[in-house]
Amino acid sequence: MRLLMINPNTTASITERVVDVARRCAAPDTEILGATGRFGARYISSRSAAAIAGHAALDAWANAEPHDAVVLACFGDPGLDALRELSPKPVVGMADASIHAACMLGQRFAIVTGGERWVAMLEEFVAARGLAGRLAGVLALPQTGAAIAQDPDGALDALAACCRTAVSERAADCVILGGAGLAGLPARIAHRVEVPLVDCVIAAVGQAQGLAALAVSKPQAGSLALPAPVPSVGLSPALAARIGPME
Amino acid sequence: MRLLMINPNTTASITERVVDVARRCAAPDTEILGATGRFGARYISSRSAAAIAGHAALDAWANAEPHDAVVLACFGDPGLDALRELSPKPVVGMADASIHAACMLGQRFAIVTGGERWVAMLEEFVAARGLAGRLAGVLALPQTGAAIAQDPDGALDALAACCRTAVSERAADCVILGGAGLAGLPARIAHRVEVPLVDCVIAAVGQAQGLAALAVSKPQAGSLALPAPVPSVGLSPALAARIGPME
Amino acid sequence: MRLLMINPNTTASITERVVDVARRCAAPDTEILGATGRFGARYISSRSAAAIAGHAALDAWANAEPHDAVVLACFGDPGLDALRELSPKPVVGMADASIHAACMLGQRFAIVTGGERWVAMLEEFVAARGLAGRLAGVLALPQTGAAIAQDPDGALDALAACCRTAVSERAADCVILGGAGLAGLPARIAHRVEVPLVDCVIAAVGQAQGLAALAVSKPQAGSLALPAPVPSVGLSPALAARIGPME
Amino acid sequence: MRLLMINPNTTASITERVVDVARRCAAPDTEILGATGRFGARYISSRSAAAIAGHAALDAWANAEPHDAVVLACFGDPGLDALRELSPKPVVGMADASIHAACMLGQRFAIVTGGERWVAMLEEFVAARGLAGRLAGVLALPQTGAAIAQDPDGALDALAACCRTAVSERAADCVILGGAGLAGLPARIAHRVEVPLVDCVIAAVGQAQGLAALAVSKPQAGSLALPAPVPSVGLSPALAARIGPME
Amino acid sequence: MRLLMINPNTTASITERVVDVARRCAAPDTEILGATGRFGARYISSRSAAAIAGHAALDAWANAEPHDAVVLACFGDPGLDALRELSPKPVVGMADASIHAACMLGQRFAIVTGGERWVAMLEEFVAARGLAGRLAGVLALPQTGAAIAQDPDGALDALAACCRTAVSERAADCVILGGAGLAGLPARIAHRVEVPLVDCVIAAVGQAQGLAALAVSKPQAGSLALPAPVPSVGLSPALAARIGPME
Amino acid sequence: MRLLMINPNTTASITERVVDVARRCAAPDTEILGATGRFGARYISSRSAAAIAGHAALDAWANAEPHDAVVLACFGDPGLDALRELSPKPVVGMADASIHAACMLGQRFAIVTGGERWVAMLEEFVAARGLAGRLAGVLALPQTGAAIAQDPDGALDALAACCRTAVSERAADCVILGGAGLAGLPARIAHRVEVPLVDCVIAAVGQAQGLAALAVSKPQAGSLALPAPVPSVGLSPALAARIGPME
Repeated sequence: MRLLMINPNTTASITERVVDVARRCAAPDTEILGATGRFGARYISSRSAAAIAGHAALDAWANAEPHDAVVLACFGDPGLDALRELSPKPVVGMADASIHAACMLGQRFAIVTGGERWVAMLEEFVAARGLAGRLAGVLALPQTGAAIAQDPDGALDALAACCRTAVSERAADCVILGGAGLAGLPARIAHRVEVPLVDCVIAAVGQAQGLAALAVSKPQAGSLALPAPVPSVGLSPALAARIGPME
Repeated sequence: MRLLMINPNTTASITERVVDVARRCAAPDTEILGATGRFGARYISSRSAAAIAGHAALDAWANAEPHDAVVLACFGDPGLDALRELSPKPVVGMADASIHAACMLGQRFAIVTGGERWVAMLEEFVAARGLAGRLAGVLALPQTGAAIAQDPDGALDALAACCRTAVSERAADCVILGGAGLAGLPARIAHRVEVPLVDCVIAAVGQAQGLAALAVSKPQAGSLALPAPVPSVGLSPALAARIGPME
Repeated sequence: MRLLMINPNTTASITERVVDVARRCAAPDTEILGATGRFGARYISSRSAAAIAGHAALDAWANAEPHDAVVLACFGDPGLDALRELSPKPVVGMADASIHAACMLGQRFAIVTGGERWVAMLEEFVAARGLAGRLAGVLALPQTGAAIAQDPDGALDALAACCRTAVSERAADCVILGGAGLAGLPARIAHRVEVPLVDCVIAAVGQAQGLAALAVSKPQAGSLALPAPVPSVGLSPALAARIGPME
Repeated sequence: MRLLMINPNTTASITERVVDVARRCAAPDTEILGATGRFGARYISSRSAAAIAGHAALDAWANAEPHDAVVLACFGDPGLDALRELSPKPVVGMADASIHAACMLGQRFAIVTGGERWVAMLEEFVAARGLAGRLAGVLALPQTGAAIAQDPDGALDALAACCRTAVSERAADCVILGGAGLAGLPARIAHRVEVPLVDCVIAAVGQAQGLAALAVSKPQAGSLALPAPVPSVGLSPALAARIGPME
Repeated sequence: MRLLMINPNTTASITERVVDVARRCAAPDTEILGATGRFGARYISSRSAAAIAGHAALDAWANAEPHDAVVLACFGDPGLDALRELSPKPVVGMADASIHAACMLGQRFAIVTGGERWVAMLEEFVAARGLAGRLAGVLALPQTGAAIAQDPDGALDALAACCRTAVSERAADCVILGGAGLAGLPARIAHRVEVPLVDCVIAAVGQAQGLAALAVSKPQAGSLALPAPVPSVGLSPALAARIGPME
Repeated sequence: MRLLMINPNTTASITERVVDVARRCAAPDTEILGATGRFGARYISSRSAAAIAGHAALDAWANAEPHDAVVLACFGDPGLDALRELSPKPVVGMADASIHAACMLGQRFAIVTGGERWVAMLEEFVAARGLAGRLAGVLALPQTGAAIAQDPDGALDALAACCRTAVSERAADCVILGGAGLAGLPARIAHRVEVPLVDCVIAAVGQAQGLAALAVSKPQAGSLALPAPVPSVGLSPALAARIGPME
């Protein structure tokens, strides 16, 4: 299986990090491909950057190599349902995959991430996926995930403390470390936290492999079937071709 | 007050229609400005077109004339909270304004629109705004709102029938005609429907004028305060300048 | 437009205050009328006083001058849906209008009011309108709104502190100052609070003007249509005539 | 135990009917007292009549004989929480008691009643009590409960059919016959319906007796403690004395 | 009426305690029978012990003396709906009865119990009954209910303090003391708590007597009707005979 | 990885069927073990049979061979959280795994199963997992899953029709075929249904493999940590040893 990891921000080193963690956890017959957003914010830590990234994710997908499944590798999953609508292959969001995995590890999950603006955004994301009742809380370090990725060693103590707070004050049964920049870190602090930690890249790769095993075909009806083509202007040719005839 | 109406699709004639209805219902001292999406689908009737429009709405706003308030004039409000985050002025979504107005006219509101793909998208929108408990249902004519706008006379019978169905089968206490292409039509079929009809452009202009009267200032805290600046690539200079330093 | 402000408590000076604030914020062509409850508690800060006020609001309305729209000017809106059922004109509740306006200014709104018994009552009110998911919390000063109205200068510090608490501890994106007695005060403390403040009288007038612009007619079906007439005893002649034949 | 049954409408024959059914089902040591609303609609089948009845229920209670517990005997329970706030004794609402009893007889309960306006009002009542998730539906005969009470024999077929519809189309596990006018009828049609039927008067008497056995005292804190006294005008002396000093 | 109290744990002294409290509060014509689980944990304070107890409750019921109604006397009600499905007589759960009684005593109820593992289990129980919106919180003493039953005097201070915390910090309008081991204790600490306390055994007996007064018959349809018989192995003969032909 | 499939009913041929499908879809390094309930109903199609199966699942687990992860292979997952509490290894429920997988394939999922009693039970299961908002509906063939397993060819037409109904009438975006007896059938009818079909065994194996990749350790805190040991009577020695000291 060829698994496309789309990082919808515009920092290639984050894509490399995600691809690297994915390669280490994927099944032997899973090939990992990476794609990076071609426009938009260098990192995504606001509603506006996420809105742009929804478009960038579609654009990166339309311009990517052939693949059998997609992981949208920004925790918060901008453009997830739009990608699912257009893509003939299964699409997994990194946050979506993580919260569903977490639900199988505990009654209540918390999310620990970087960047305080993500707190409300992720609460809304979880609610939109219908899982607000399972959410123990979202806790954020002040620095962004990108900053954590640049100095992971310096963030480990704060991350572990935040996870323990989620257990002691929010009654979390498990904790997701959310963010591409935090991929790989759960393994480093697991021994310091009393409950299971979810690595969002490993969760996403696992869910993608699981969906691939189901061998489902593209919906021909319902809310995620391919929509009627529509003309467009100003898009990349590859994306324009995906949504309809170019003008 | 200068009120900016942003149509995030790329069809200028729809912008003109919205601006025209807005001018007729606005207060005497409200000046109506229009802006049209500079890239994306010609009309928005899918999740993918809406995701692109979220970016296009931000882009159109960043490139628009000075104004005192904003109406996001695509029913479904792609990019609404992102715009609210960046804009120093109040931002009203056409769907958001309509559902809040409808809640003051009845216990349960229905939405009648054009394009069957909007049904799930609008159900999700209403739920995301916290008002699923007030929603009697979303009913859609098969043709898109753009098609209705091109032949409104031919759609009146079907729209009225759909509204009456919302009353008789969904127990709606009022009905929103949702879509820029349907602006102005409620007045033409109101006598054929037993409950109040909400014109989404009139609702949006009314809410924008009401918010302006509150004279609130830009949040300095919370989820809609201006985020920290972030570098970006590939955006229009005006939008890039709004979200951070250009590279 | 003639806008009737009904204060369903029995203190005329509160009515005057509301009318005064309304006149200052209304559109030039909006004429403000006041009506005061003719029986019941001097101020409303309990479930029992509110239950009586539901009747008093209907009674005051039935005995009022002709008008084009109604504002029920007690924050908590006793009798709101009953008034909407009987009135051929749009009816706006001061709390209802405020929470819908607040939803367009932020993801999560808080309410700051006077009188601790209102906390549970307003939480239940917001839930009954379907917006519990948007409510950051209700915070109350110990003194009633009536007491605040008598010494507004002495309450400003406490009100501002309470609003800031709503932001820092409840993650409110905006705050409503709820209560007729607090009308006019948001403008005086806005500079001390990091998020937008909603003045409940200004919000109500704005919503009433917005609904009037929609030019909707009285529902002929559904939950707010005029009910079948029913005989009654012991009511004021004007109210009895509104609900059915007098015995 | 002396159990006060308050019928907040103004038709004494309905009070008698309720008292009669209550006497037959009460424990030997339970004495049943009746009280009738002293003003308001002859029967309650609208939001406006119910709003007036909230006041009338308080008034009837304040003017009633001494008692040990109260049943508010209008299905829909106007003024329930206000009565609970003022009364030093337990207060049971006829609809509230019925839905809680029904929850112990089945996963999903339906309500069958008389008068179509009650459908929305009871849906909202059940939601306000937090039990919307258990409600299979509210079904109403066209005639009011008062009309059914005048010709019960003529309504039995329609009531039984309505109950069976609740089972077959709404998946109800039990059905409440809601309304003072329907008291006593469940026993007459039980053999024609596949699921348990709840008689609302019997349920209310049972709950009142059950609460009396708990021997709880009046709350001194929280949302149902006695509120601070407040002056009033225009109320009956007995009610005015209950809520505060008379002016 | 013969009322069967099933204690699904395997400690007969707990059964005796429950039966004793029940006898003191029951109506004169109510005879109390006891039954104790024949296998499983000595006391139930975990998900696994509760899962086993669901089976043990069915087994104890199938092997019990004839009766007219059943109380499942483990607070948390393992096997409640399964018992309701099989039993031709009404079945009341001790927690279920208590939360419904509490809803008639206050807007928001809290549960105070023994054993910290019950906190999540009871939150989930209340949510499963549809009453999460009424729950102020679950608070637990560290020791199990069984330990409290062995030294009730030593626990009174801590129980009273916990109840007061529920009022002051969780805004509870009433508090349930949950657990067979806590039966009888509410009467001893009621004077130390500002809000009504619910004794779970008294509540359960009251609800069982109330349901018996409704004189409903076994559902012939819906989710609690008797299921089709199914062969089984390894069950007690009496239980096997209840669910189908033995092999 | 050694993956233990526990079939908590007492029919070994169903276990074999599940194991067989699991072996065909598992990763090359996944070894599949089977375990069958040692007491209880031959198949599970009622609340009572499910309650017994919760105990039987724990018993089968305690008596099983060593393993690295567990699948509870009865769709409806009796005993799931109890198993998670006791097991040091990840535990996946077949229904739980399927609904989480389905959420990644569509906005709204339906469940098609055998046996009408499962409809309410599965609606309650989905609600208890917090996903009621994603559920399009549960549809059941009249025959049980066991009967379908004995004559799958004879059920294919009815299953396909039922799936299509879920799409056309419930707006399902994907459909789960729920039940051990239906394992393997999605592949045979996928071409006759417009939306993706989820095979519950394949979903469960995929989720188990995904959780194993996360390499989490047993919770030391929270709701799924190992509970304090408790003495017991009448259990199998292996299970008794798991929950505490035997008496």
